[in-house]
Amino acid sequence: MSYQVDFEPLGRRLRVGRGVSILTAAQQAGVGLVSICGGKGTCGRCKVQVLEGQVSPLSETEAKKLTTDEIARGYRLACQVEILSDLKVHIPPQSLTAAQRTQVEGQELTVPIVPVVVGCDVRLPPPTRKDIRSDLDRVGDHLIETLGLSDLTVDFTVLRQLSTHLREWEWSGTVGVRGREVVSFNPLGRKPLGLAVDLGTTKLAGYLVDLETGQTLAMAGAMNPQIAYGEDVMARIAYAMQGEEQAATLREAVVGAVNDLARNLCTQSSHHPEEIVEAVVVGNTAMHHLFLGLPVRQLGLAPYLPALTDALELKAREVGLEIAPGGYVHLLPIIAGFVGADHVAMILSTEIYEAEGTVLGLDIGTNTEVVLRANGRLISCSTASGPAFEGAHIKDGMRAAEGAIERLRIVASGVEYQTIGDAPPVGLCGSGVLDAVAQLRQLGVVDERGSMGDHPRVRRTEHGPEFVLVAAGEDGNGRDVVLTRGDVGEIQLAKGAIRAGINILLDEAGLSERDIDEVIIAGAFGTYIDVSSAIVIGMFPPLPLERFRQVGNAAGMGARLALISKQQRAKTAEIARRVEYIELTNDSRFVDEFAKAMYLK
Amino acid sequence: MSYQVDFEPLGRRLRVGRGVSILTAAQQAGVGLVSICGGKGTCGRCKVQVLEGQVSPLSETEAKKLTTDEIARGYRLACQVEILSDLKVHIPPQSLTAAQRTQVEGQELTVPIVPVVVGCDVRLPPPTRKDIRSDLDRVGDHLIETLGLSDLTVDFTVLRQLSTHLREWEWSGTVGVRGREVVSFNPLGRKPLGLAVDLGTTKLAGYLVDLETGQTLAMAGAMNPQIAYGEDVMARIAYAMQGEEQAATLREAVVGAVNDLARNLCTQSSHHPEEIVEAVVVGNTAMHHLFLGLPVRQLGLAPYLPALTDALELKAREVGLEIAPGGYVHLLPIIAGFVGADHVAMILSTEIYEAEGTVLGLDIGTNTEVVLRANGRLISCSTASGPAFEGAHIKDGMRAAEGAIERLRIVASGVEYQTIGDAPPVGLCGSGVLDAVAQLRQLGVVDERGSMGDHPRVRRTEHGPEFVLVAAGEDGNGRDVVLTRGDVGEIQLAKGAIRAGINILLDEAGLSERDIDEVIIAGAFGTYIDVSSAIVIGMFPPLPLERFRQVGNAAGMGARLALISKQQRAKTAEIARRVEYIELTNDSRFVDEFAKAMYLK
Repeated sequence: MSYQVDFEPLGRRLRVGRGVSILTAAQQAGVGLVSICGGKGTCGRCKVQVLEGQVSPLSETEAKKLTTDEIARGYRLACQVEILSDLKVHIPPQSLTAAQRTQVEGQELTVPIVPVVVGCDVRLPPPTRKDIRSDLDRVGDHLIETLGLSDLTVDFTVLRQLSTHLREWEWSGTVGVRGREVVSFNPLGRKPLGLAVDLGTTKLAGYLVDLETGQTLAMAGAMNPQIAYGEDVMARIAYAMQGEEQAATLREAVVGAVNDLARNLCTQSSHHPEEIVEAVVVGNTAMHHLFLGLPVRQLGLAPYLPALTDALELKAREVGLEIAPGGYVHLLPIIAGFVGADHVAMILSTEIYEAEGTVLGLDIGTNTEVVLRANGRLISCSTASGPAFEGAHIKDGMRAAEGAIERLRIVASGVEYQTIGDAPPVGLCGSGVLDAVAQLRQLGVVDERGSMGDHPRVRRTEHGPEFVLVAAGEDGNGRDVVLTRGDVGEIQLAKGAIRAGINILLDEAGLSERDIDEVIIAGAFGTYIDVSSAIVIGMFPPLPLERFRQVGNAAGMGARLALISKQQRAKTAEIARRVEYIELTNDSRFVDEFAKAMYLK
Repeated sequence: MSYQVDFEPLGRRLRVGRGVSILTAAQQAGVGLVSICGGKGTCGRCKVQVLEGQVSPLSETEAKKLTTDEIARGYRLACQVEILSDLKVHIPPQSLTAAQRTQVEGQELTVPIVPVVVGCDVRLPPPTRKDIRSDLDRVGDHLIETLGLSDLTVDFTVLRQLSTHLREWEWSGTVGVRGREVVSFNPLGRKPLGLAVDLGTTKLAGYLVDLETGQTLAMAGAMNPQIAYGEDVMARIAYAMQGEEQAATLREAVVGAVNDLARNLCTQSSHHPEEIVEAVVVGNTAMHHLFLGLPVRQLGLAPYLPALTDALELKAREVGLEIAPGGYVHLLPIIAGFVGADHVAMILSTEIYEAEGTVLGLDIGTNTEVVLRANGRLISCSTASGPAFEGAHIKDGMRAAEGAIERLRIVASGVEYQTIGDAPPVGLCGSGVLDAVAQLRQLGVVDERGSMGDHPRVRRTEHGPEFVLVAAGEDGNGRDVVLTRGDVGEIQLAKGAIRAGINILLDEAGLSERDIDEVIIAGAFGTYIDVSSAIVIGMFPPLPLERFRQVGNAAGMGARLALISKQQRAKTAEIARRVEYIELTNDSRFVDEFAKAMYLK
């Protein structure tokens, strides 16, 4: 009797026998679960949350080590729990040993720094019997004089603290002014900071920015905890549609994760979250709506309407963001139900919108957004490429974490590969899967339709053929790492969707792939892939390699640009307005193009 | 032959026979019309305004008791007038006895209605596969077309419900637009309403207003529940200074009372609080700060600085006001630590600020604000008149509730008096105390310094002399109602403070009391007092009675004006800026003037 165990948010799966402990299963799966005591239950560190499935009852040890609240929320100690059915387990970040690799970096762009919030140090004369101006006027008069502003207003939360702080800080402090509004008042010298966030379906990326210099002070990634409630956008929408409580759960999960991220960035760089006076948030339309607590029902049903498309500006406290209480969060505009603010940010930071030639842009993820700049037009679409590139639905797939094979080549002597962290191989992340399919296709082991032929490493199982990339024990790993016929099929679906999108945009512009001057590939997965492999399997058009540019997290970069420059922020509205959106589910060309594009050339 | 008589603003109607007096009709209808002399025409207190219908001609008695101006405006003495047709009669507040006795009425002023929020009905085409505008754009495009607006924004709470409501209400609804912001979305036909609130130290007054017509739909008063934590402003400040919890208690108490008031007004007029899209709140500086949760420590210590003086505009939800979640609350500007937004509102509604001659304005309460308009200047001060006029610190004092003696005259046969609700006398409210002191002073029982001489009704007690106004059991009352020497002293302090304020403002303007063309008396107490009594004791300058105008709740009236007219609202900033404030505690003239003014002439 064996059960499937699914470790979230890593997306790592394996089958184990009945009665095996979750800790043992995690170890077999190569998941780095903290376990200082070696499974005795004394350290209490291997906390996991059982999301679905049956397990043994709570032990006395667990009752001691876990809080009532944790127990209520399904937390257990992995070493104490026996698996009694198929299982879905969430591993909280603090129980993971190795950090996940999340793409946060992007190319740096230099733009003139014109932040929406400026800092101003004030040192004021204390009141006297003759100078009985109100506390706010005392500050305001100084700002009017120093910054040449008039008609100042003040955020209510700043006002509520102002009289007390002025007296505590001896009539000095640093004021954050946004347009004509005072949005922050901090002890003297604490300059206004900004926070840029890219809300991905799977991952979050955050950047702490000095608004005066435009310098990025810290950057960090985190998993999107909404994964526990649905792997892709449609699953999340379906979950939120179950009721207000479920929608609130999703909202609170992601807002909490962004708050953790902000605190983490501040700790890294010795700052305080109250110094963050402005946040720019980008994400696809569903992530954007779920973050804001907007209804998503209409987003999940044809014709897939967003609640709004324009940029939105709110007090951060209105959405529960724990930064300066008077600070704002700015959400970049959206293009359509499946082309979000992250796409706008990507178009901004890659400067595709003002490119001279014909440029194709791709932001590859669970949904892949494609944009074509041609003849002065900007045409976009979104394709459901699925989570295969995140390692999901792939037998030995996993996310890009320690032990994941991220590159491989099949040579005469066997398989050469490279793992993240140079750790013993435990599975394949997206770029590894892509390489594997490309290599097998080039060797002829896999044909155009994805069928797997004979090879010394191919073995037939009851579920079909599979190619053994690394055999158990070969390199210190505990088990085989294979690529199955089914895995090849998943990649065919994913790359077929992307290529169909590309072809429809080219058709729309009356161009062919030879006309493309440059292909810009954004996103974490896009950064790590081997472009030649992607060409071999027909995901990308067969263009000279020098026409490809891998730009990293372009959405996060765009968010940072909108944070430090009013001009850049203003451009996003223009981009959103100019993009011509093609809804592929409505498009008569899609079925044919998709069918053709699934072939491995 | 019978006629219908309609008593406004109470809305009470009845049918009476031809030739019946208005006073009799009022008594039959249960309307509490002041009538000290019992219908002889000697007290001149039962003034009413005949709005429509035929009545008997003016009597000689009336010609004596009414001013030319009153006669011109249709004022009559109810006891003298015979009803000769169907009739519509307005009862001015000063002629009303009974009721809750919270002064909410004020004179009506006619201004062009230019509300800050306008309502717009929308009926939208539902989306199709070809019309995939976002939900907000669908509404926004309609508003842009209908109202000629551009760059619309939307309140976040409206946005959060918009997609759901649009589908529930079949693509229709009534939108409230404030400037360029959508602040409310209600089912079709629910027009935007406004709420005006006067936060008094003792009482609250609320008005529900139709923002389209400017009409007051309902009005109500309530006690300020903060009274439990301190009778006057200084006691409340001291309580709030004990800690954050105490300050929060005061804030929550008053906000809760305003929410109750709003619900009550809506119930009265069959509306919903969510239809209220704008609130204007006025109050003295301490009430204003406590309502907002601003610190008050600096307000309680010299030099008594407010946190701010400018008008403040907030989302109502930020202060806990339970109206339309996207609605705003606007707080009129403040002048100084002891001259608040209520004073600004009073100056607005009485039009003192643009008066031609020399006009004195008084808003009598626990603190009395005094303003002098002279030679183009506006000069204000605030005097601590104390709670004696609310019946506090007076041996048999009470608030203006049922059974309170509100008017009295000492005659040969004893004491004639009138109680609220015509109930057996249980004590004295402010106007009764004032009458009692004035009568005793006129009879010579009390001398200039407040000492009490001999009289059959004066008895000596261990606490000093007291005058028995009503002996126990005399009129169904259970106990004596007396005025003590100590009570006279309290009134001397209170009226001394007010008169000192008046004299200092006159001195500041280089004028004497003879130069005053008009005295405007606002506030609940000011409305009910007998001006002659106030002159007898020296509280007011000895001017002809026709120069006095009792205007009721002028602060509440000002709040309503700022609610229905942008122009009126804009004037408040100008008023606050123009007022020259004199801080009496700093003023070298104050001690002398106060000492002089305590004499009962």
